[in-house]
Amino acid sequence: MKINGTSYRTIWLGADGRVVEIIDQTRLPHEFVTVGLTSLDDAAKAIKDMWVRGAPLIGATAAYGMALACLEDASDKGLARAYEVLHVTRPTAINLKWALDEMMAVLAPLAVKDRVDAAYGRAAEICDEDSEQNARLGAFGAKIIAEHHKAKGRTINILTHCNAGWLATVDWGTALAPIYKAFDAGIPVHVWVDETRPRNQGASLTARELNWHGVPHTVIADNTGGHLMQHGMVDLCIVGTDRTTRNGDVCNKIGTYLKALAAKDNNVPFYVGLPSPTIDWTVADGVKEIPIETRSAREQTHIFGKTEDGAVCEVQVTPDGSAAVNYGFDVTPARLVTGLITERGVCEASPEGLRGLFPERA
Amino acid sequence: MKINGTSYRTIWLGADGRVVEIIDQTRLPHEFVTVGLTSLDDAAKAIKDMWVRGAPLIGATAAYGMALACLEDASDKGLARAYEVLHVTRPTAINLKWALDEMMAVLAPLAVKDRVDAAYGRAAEICDEDSEQNARLGAFGAKIIAEHHKAKGRTINILTHCNAGWLATVDWGTALAPIYKAFDAGIPVHVWVDETRPRNQGASLTARELNWHGVPHTVIADNTGGHLMQHGMVDLCIVGTDRTTRNGDVCNKIGTYLKALAAKDNNVPFYVGLPSPTIDWTVADGVKEIPIETRSAREQTHIFGKTEDGAVCEVQVTPDGSAAVNYGFDVTPARLVTGLITERGVCEASPEGLRGLFPERA
Repeated sequence: MKINGTSYRTIWLGADGRVVEIIDQTRLPHEFVTVGLTSLDDAAKAIKDMWVRGAPLIGATAAYGMALACLEDASDKGLARAYEVLHVTRPTAINLKWALDEMMAVLAPLAVKDRVDAAYGRAAEICDEDSEQNARLGAFGAKIIAEHHKAKGRTINILTHCNAGWLATVDWGTALAPIYKAFDAGIPVHVWVDETRPRNQGASLTARELNWHGVPHTVIADNTGGHLMQHGMVDLCIVGTDRTTRNGDVCNKIGTYLKALAAKDNNVPFYVGLPSPTIDWTVADGVKEIPIETRSAREQTHIFGKTEDGAVCEVQVTPDGSAAVNYGFDVTPARLVTGLITERGVCEASPEGLRGLFPERA
Repeated sequence: MKINGTSYRTIWLGADGRVVEIIDQTRLPHEFVTVGLTSLDDAAKAIKDMWVRGAPLIGATAAYGMALACLEDASDKGLARAYEVLHVTRPTAINLKWALDEMMAVLAPLAVKDRVDAAYGRAAEICDEDSEQNARLGAFGAKIIAEHHKAKGRTINILTHCNAGWLATVDWGTALAPIYKAFDAGIPVHVWVDETRPRNQGASLTARELNWHGVPHTVIADNTGGHLMQHGMVDLCIVGTDRTTRNGDVCNKIGTYLKALAAKDNNVPFYVGLPSPTIDWTVADGVKEIPIETRSAREQTHIFGKTEDGAVCEVQVTPDGSAAVNYGFDVTPARLVTGLITERGVCEASPEGLRGLFPERA
C-alpha cells in the first residue's frame, strides 16, 4: 500500500539482496523508521519485540530469519537451532510455525552450499504468496461491503479491532484488505478503529495506515463498539486472526470476543479475514486448546505517546504498587462469527464451512 | 475510607465552615491534591472538568455548589441561575438533578436571609445520607460475596469497570462498597480492575483507592474481561451506574454493556451497586431514552501519565490527522443484569423488582 504516495511492502530486501529491511512498528504512529536485519538474532528480536507483528508478517520475517541464519550456519545443526530460536519468539502465531516448516521442507533436503539461495528464494515466494492471497481475500470481502452499500445506499460503517492491515502482513492486510479494495473501487466506507489496549495497535497502526491511504476513519475506545452497535452505527465488523481452529473458533487480539458478543446481540454481521496459513487444522476447540500468550505487564501499566514538544516517551498510567496482567489474545467461538473471508472465498465458521473451501484438508 | 491510615471523605468543609474542600481527582493516581471551592463557578468547574466525578459525588458537589451560590446571591433569581449553571455541567448524571431539586425544595420556601445556613445544612445531610446508604448497600452486597466464598472456599475474584468506589461517592462507594465491607470482614477477595478508557478511571482511581485500602487487585485492559470469564477467573461482576431506569436498564461508563454480555455468555453473575437517587423513575427504556454524553475527543487521543522522572504529562496516542470520538456511557439492558444492590436490599433488574423495594414509587 502507499505511504505519502510511495508504494511499500512491510518487508523487503536491501540493495545487496541479503539485508532484510522492515519498518520498526513500535515507533509508529509518530515516527517512520526502517531497520535492516542482518542476522538470525536480529530477526528473532524483531519478532519478539514486535518491531514486526501480525501473523502473516511474523511468518514472512521468520522465513527471512531462516535465510539470514543460513548466511551464518547453513548446516543441519544451524537450521535446527534457527528453527528453535525463531519458534519461541511468539507462541500464539500459527503462521510462525507454518513458515518455519515451509522453510525446513525446502532446505533440509538440499546440500548445505545450496541453502542460502534457496532460503532467500522461498522466503521471497512466501512474501509474494501472502500479498497475492490477501489481495484475493480482499476482493471477496469487498463484495460483501459492496452488497451492504447497494442495499443501504450510503457510507458503510465497518468496525475493526487491533491491526490486521497491510502493516500486519506483507501487503494489503487481512481484515483491512476488503476495506482497501472497496475504497479503491469507489465504495464509500468509514472505519471505526478500536484503540486496542494494551499496545494500542488500532490507534497506532490501523489509524496510521488508513490515514496514509486516505480511508475515512475514527478512533474509538475499545469500550465503545457495543454502544455504536446498539444505535445502528456499525454495518459490519471485520477483524483479523492469529489462529483459527478447524471448527472456526477465532483466536485474535484480546477483546475481539467482546465485540463479537455485541455484534451477535445487535444482529451486526461479524466477519474474520482469514488467509489459509492462519488456520490451525490440528486444533478443534479454541477456548480449551489454544494457549494464550501472557505478555509483559508493562504494556498495561505504561503507554507510549508523543508529548507536546514532539518527543516520543513512555508514561505510567497505573499507581505505583498496583499489579497488572496482560493476556494478549482471546478466542471468539465460531457460533459468534458470521463468516470467514479467505483467499478462496467466504465460508461459514464451522468444520463443514472450512472443509468446503479446503477439501484437501478434509 | 482510609488514605495511608487517615480517614477521608471525598468532600468536606474547611475550618471556616464555608469553603468546600475536594480532592482534584484529575491529578490521581500520581498526585494527591486537595482544592478549596469558594464560589458557584468553582463548583461548576469542579464538576464539568471532572475534578469530582461519579454520580453521588457530583450530586453532593452540586448541593454544596448551591450553598456557595447562596453566599453570592441567595435571591430567587440567584437560586434559579445557580440551578441552571450546575445542571448543564454533566447531562447524564441523574444524581445531579436530584440533588439540585432537593436543594431547591428546601431553599425556595425560605426567606432569603435564612437560605445560606439551610443550604449548608441540607448539603451536609445529603453527604451523610450518601455515606450511610452506601454503607447499607455495601452490607447487602457483602452478603453475596460471602455466599460465593462459602460455596467456593477460596478467594473470590470480582471484576469491576470504571470507578464506583469511595472516590465516586462521599464515602464507601457503590460498586466497591460490598468489596470493602467483605474485605473488612476478612473475606478473601481479589478485584480485576478494568483500565476504563477513555479517562482511565479504573487504572487511575479504582486501583488507587484499592491500593490505599490494601485490597488485592490487578489492573487489566478493558478488552480482557471476556477471556477471564471464559476461563473461570471471574466469580462475579459488580459495577456502578450513573442512571438506572425504572425497568432496570443500567446506564454506566462506556463498555459496561460489553462486560455484561460476556458475563451472560459465561454464566457469571452481573450486579450493579445502585443507591436509590440514581434511579430515574421517569425513564423506562434506557437504550432508546437516555441521552449519551459525547465528551472531548482529546480524552481519546491523549493520555495522562507519569514520566520516568516523576513528572505528570499528557501524551498523544493517535497519529496526527486521525479523528476520534468519545461517547461517555452505554446502556446495559436489564436482561443482562443479575441483580441491583440497593440500600434497601438486592432486587431483580425489572420494574417489579424495583417497585418491590421502593413501593412508594409504584
